[in-house]
Amino acid sequence: MIDVKTIVLAPDSFKESMTAKQVCEAMERGIRRANPEIRCLHAPMADGGEGTAQSIVDATGGRLYPLRVKGPLGSEVQACYGITGDGKTAVLEMASASGIGLVPETERNPLLTTTYGTGQLIKAALDHGIHRLLIGIGGSATNDGGAGMLQALGGKLLDESGHELGPGGGALHKLSRIDFGGLDPRIRQVKVEAACDVTNPLCGPEGASHVFGPQKGATPDMAAVLDANLRHFADVIRRQLGIDIADVPGAGAAGGLGAGIMVFLNGTLHKGMELVARMTGLEEKIKRADMVWTGEGSIDAQTRFGKTPYGVARAAKKHRKPVIAFAGRIGDGIDELYEQGIDAVFGILPGACDLQDALRQGEANMERAAENAMRLLMLRR
Amino acid sequence: MIDVKTIVLAPDSFKESMTAKQVCEAMERGIRRANPEIRCLHAPMADGGEGTAQSIVDATGGRLYPLRVKGPLGSEVQACYGITGDGKTAVLEMASASGIGLVPETERNPLLTTTYGTGQLIKAALDHGIHRLLIGIGGSATNDGGAGMLQALGGKLLDESGHELGPGGGALHKLSRIDFGGLDPRIRQVKVEAACDVTNPLCGPEGASHVFGPQKGATPDMAAVLDANLRHFADVIRRQLGIDIADVPGAGAAGGLGAGIMVFLNGTLHKGMELVARMTGLEEKIKRADMVWTGEGSIDAQTRFGKTPYGVARAAKKHRKPVIAFAGRIGDGIDELYEQGIDAVFGILPGACDLQDALRQGEANMERAAENAMRLLMLRR
Repeated sequence: MIDVKTIVLAPDSFKESMTAKQVCEAMERGIRRANPEIRCLHAPMADGGEGTAQSIVDATGGRLYPLRVKGPLGSEVQACYGITGDGKTAVLEMASASGIGLVPETERNPLLTTTYGTGQLIKAALDHGIHRLLIGIGGSATNDGGAGMLQALGGKLLDESGHELGPGGGALHKLSRIDFGGLDPRIRQVKVEAACDVTNPLCGPEGASHVFGPQKGATPDMAAVLDANLRHFADVIRRQLGIDIADVPGAGAAGGLGAGIMVFLNGTLHKGMELVARMTGLEEKIKRADMVWTGEGSIDAQTRFGKTPYGVARAAKKHRKPVIAFAGRIGDGIDELYEQGIDAVFGILPGACDLQDALRQGEANMERAAENAMRLLMLRR
Repeated sequence: MIDVKTIVLAPDSFKESMTAKQVCEAMERGIRRANPEIRCLHAPMADGGEGTAQSIVDATGGRLYPLRVKGPLGSEVQACYGITGDGKTAVLEMASASGIGLVPETERNPLLTTTYGTGQLIKAALDHGIHRLLIGIGGSATNDGGAGMLQALGGKLLDESGHELGPGGGALHKLSRIDFGGLDPRIRQVKVEAACDVTNPLCGPEGASHVFGPQKGATPDMAAVLDANLRHFADVIRRQLGIDIADVPGAGAAGGLGAGIMVFLNGTLHKGMELVARMTGLEEKIKRADMVWTGEGSIDAQTRFGKTPYGVARAAKKHRKPVIAFAGRIGDGIDELYEQGIDAVFGILPGACDLQDALRQGEANMERAAENAMRLLMLRR
């Protein structure tokens, strides 16, 4: 068996229970109870979705900044962005300003929702003099192609008579030209990378409106209107900038925000897990370790589709390091994961209990499960 | 780390979920999914309480025989006894015929309850031509000093005028002499051993009536009567047989059945776990194995007081073999167990669920937990 001296702790957050950093700390407490000699390298992870800013800030010793911005429907919401410990990189989640979770089901209407708040977060981040900007773009309530974001950064979307368009993807059919004159010049100095796990184009049957519109409240008719509007939006962009964005993979992410980031911020799209792994120095840490521990609130057949434990396992296998995973809930179909490089999976619950208790007891349960896994790894004759 | 080729599987039953044998089988399925090369030696265990007959029968390839007998209050109950695979040993639980679980709370009255049914089980077992008899004596509803058992085996308890006493500890004050003339002679040919984890004397403040009477429905006054009656019972025995049983450790077990077994069956008392371990060949198997797996439905601070995982760990440590334990519920205070020789403890639940689901899913959960523990033990660089 392996002789374990150094372990990388690279869990995702356990949603509604622990941040990834708290999971790392609970794992380390358990490991040290079993063996105080073990060296733990913390790499709190995320997949580009909720918790990404928190994990990157935690991993780099940075901090989160709260900011009140325009929500998806215009009313103010409390959002936040993070700045890494070295002050050079900002990280934010579009969902914090423009996410579906901010809109009550009854009010969901992608004709009206805007990414304006996301633009406000970017503008505030630029005030920190950053060189790099990471944007997690999952969970959007919007279908505006990033138009709102552009407006918040000083761009103007004008109709034939030179008037500015109202918010939302429903107004884009009136777009005649985009005035970039007032665009915040600092954005040109910043390397922008978006965490995005979908490859949908901007328009068409596989596009943002038809595929993701419905879960944002779009009826089939609305989806058709939104799709036509994004097509028109792309036409204007092609005419003005000579960029054909309509069919670029990922352009359709987050209601077309993927396209807006590529076109207006000159940004690039990346797998969320890989962006976060880079920021947390995951691979460097894996190289120095004897094994890797990961985990997520729930581990099941879905885990192999871009979830953190899967990504961590792939990175670990590159360097032939064993990987074990912990979960609050182990679902069906985990056999696949063994083939994907997760060597063993452990549930952390001590017994039958309701979900609320399980979430509340997360840290104690994680600590105990980690202690006993470590005790097993230490067995000697 | 250890190189594992052979594993002893020595769990107790998981009450209301799996027999010890079913736990062994689920453990082996999981182990073999992880590594088909592993050799598993099954030693289904018990602690002398519920499940003892089942485990010994399972471990020796024997079988259980159902029998209708007199219950604690005289009405018929369905009880059973087991005969080992070699046909030489019978194993029974007094609770199956005379247990507290057979009496509704409202009817509990140790003045009246009798061990007669336990005697009937013994008589039926003798018909198999056994050489050895094991009796688990936990969980009794009785306080009759084994008088009922003796009556079922042909002994007569007579009052001054030569009439037989009625059932129950409440009648013993009338005992004048015991007529052993009709006692089944075959009992003298059988080596009788009782599984008993208490050391209480028959009489006095630490005796059967005062310590265990209350949980069988005795008021303080009833307990005083029962204690006086057992004292009188002991006096008659001393006068007739020259045996002073009153203060012998364990004589007070199971409402004085401990005394009855020692005096009338010439039996000896042993720790339940040790009797079962001997019957299942636990130590021989441990000697041939690289590690030992045990488990019980619930593992907590109580486990170190004579419970199976504790006993298994002690036996394993004699031969310096590592021990891991599995449980449906891990309670508080398990740190103690690490010092007692249980190297690691794993919960088997996959996530939050109610107790009924946990009990229903026992085998699948045990199998998955065993598979992943085995996978961890197999880790290689």
